Amino acid sequence: MGRVKRMERVVALTKILVDHPQHLFSFSYFCKKFEVAKSTLSEDVLAVKNGLELFGLGRVETLAGAAGGVRFVPGRRVENDNEFLEELAVKLSSPDRILPGGILYITDILCNPQIVFKLGEIFLNRLQHLAPDYVMTVETRGISLALLVARAFNVPLVMARHDNYITEGPTVNINYVSGSSKTIRTMALPKRVLQPGKKVLIVDDVMKGGGTARGMMELVSEVGATVVGKAFLIATAEPEAKLIGDYTAFLRLHDVNEEARKITIEPIKG
Amino acid sequence: MGRVKRMERVVALTKILVDHPQHLFSFSYFCKKFEVAKSTLSEDVLAVKNGLELFGLGRVETLAGAAGGVRFVPGRRVENDNEFLEELAVKLSSPDRILPGGILYITDILCNPQIVFKLGEIFLNRLQHLAPDYVMTVETRGISLALLVARAFNVPLVMARHDNYITEGPTVNINYVSGSSKTIRTMALPKRVLQPGKKVLIVDDVMKGGGTARGMMELVSEVGATVVGKAFLIATAEPEAKLIGDYTAFLRLHDVNEEARKITIEPIKG
Repeated sequence: MGRVKRMERVVALTKILVDHPQHLFSFSYFCKKFEVAKSTLSEDVLAVKNGLELFGLGRVETLAGAAGGVRFVPGRRVENDNEFLEELAVKLSSPDRILPGGILYITDILCNPQIVFKLGEIFLNRLQHLAPDYVMTVETRGISLALLVARAFNVPLVMARHDNYITEGPTVNINYVSGSSKTIRTMALPKRVLQPGKKVLIVDDVMKGGGTARGMMELVSEVGATVVGKAFLIATAEPEAKLIGDYTAFLRLHDVNEEARKITIEPIKG
Repeated sequence: MGRVKRMERVVALTKILVDHPQHLFSFSYFCKKFEVAKSTLSEDVLAVKNGLELFGLGRVETLAGAAGGVRFVPGRRVENDNEFLEELAVKLSSPDRILPGGILYITDILCNPQIVFKLGEIFLNRLQHLAPDYVMTVETRGISLALLVARAFNVPLVMARHDNYITEGPTVNINYVSGSSKTIRTMALPKRVLQPGKKVLIVDDVMKGGGTARGMMELVSEVGATVVGKAFLIATAEPEAKLIGDYTAFLRLHDVNEEARKITIEPIKG
């Protein structure tokens, strides 16, 4: 490779850092890649840091010492997050989302990569202090959201299933009562995915009664791990009494009125 | 905002572009955001383009004219993709992945955000010419992979289910024969997610007999859309005769030998 200009290095450095949120790169990794001395790299890192922070696009952290290095931490501005949630609430209020039985249709939102990508960073912004080792969800609809939350935290996703599958190996199973429908369901967690003592953040798309989340909490404690947080894109206002306490939600769904064709949903601002 | 240095603008521009693969931003969007003239922005865009291309981190395309603008197209070097697939094959060859019945455990790979993120770009690299309007998969295990492929193409994900769910609205249903187990299963696609005439790329984690993929193809044609490609992370060598033709796979699984505790899997290089 011929002589590389500083601007080109900084562009490449930005791309690599932001593509690997929370991943700690050693300085020597980049010094070798860009064939520069550490002092030059430090200047480049500072340029990335300044550019990102100036426009509210995240932070760059440097850690000194032998185990040190540089990492990108996604961090949107709180006002941008609030604005995004407001727009999402407007989108979700569209009457054509009302399904029979007063169900709110949200699958398209969860299948939109750009939206769940942003939501992943919004979840991180509000829950960074929890520092989970894993993000956990249960199939199916919340998987895409939970995956992007896991990406923002740079931790693996753990997926509970509603049944035993030959593809998952031995599982721990529990029965739980679905809070809204009062039916008994099974939830299975592959034994190999979660180790005792690890910290787990539970993520799901919608929380109504909290029965499903309660089931996930039981699975986590069954394997000797710890739930450090429960986070949901949407929590319903009714029932007021939930089967779980102390949760985080980003949108509050007050009402889906089939007759009046009206959805009442509002952002819960940070 | 005070006077912004060029380097800081270029960092922010890089971050915004790479966070929105394939999304066409108008020049005026960035001119307004950075408070610069178009000539200055053009120089900034060129710097991003040069930096990314020099290090094989993707392309920046500019389109002239009123409907023009700038977009980032993920594009890894083919040798990097091949190297990544080789490493993945080594990882998947570990004997502790053998589950009873000669099943290969891969869920952890599909739940690793960094791995599926890279796989999304690798799928794009090889299948860019298909230009799908949608990526489609069927629950459950392939969802995370399909979502990141959809992100790389900047199109929505469409998710078929194995049952009817009240949360999905009216569905089109088909019965299909699972190629490997010879059992009859149901697959349901919400009517509202796919419009006639649209181009669909089918994505799944593993293809054995091809029955599931065939089921998805039928669903797509049932709503009047067109399948433009079928892509799988892993295709098994056996059975040799598949229920579908003309597919793309990135790894070939030859054998899972329970007795000898040996897995034979190889990358299919681009």
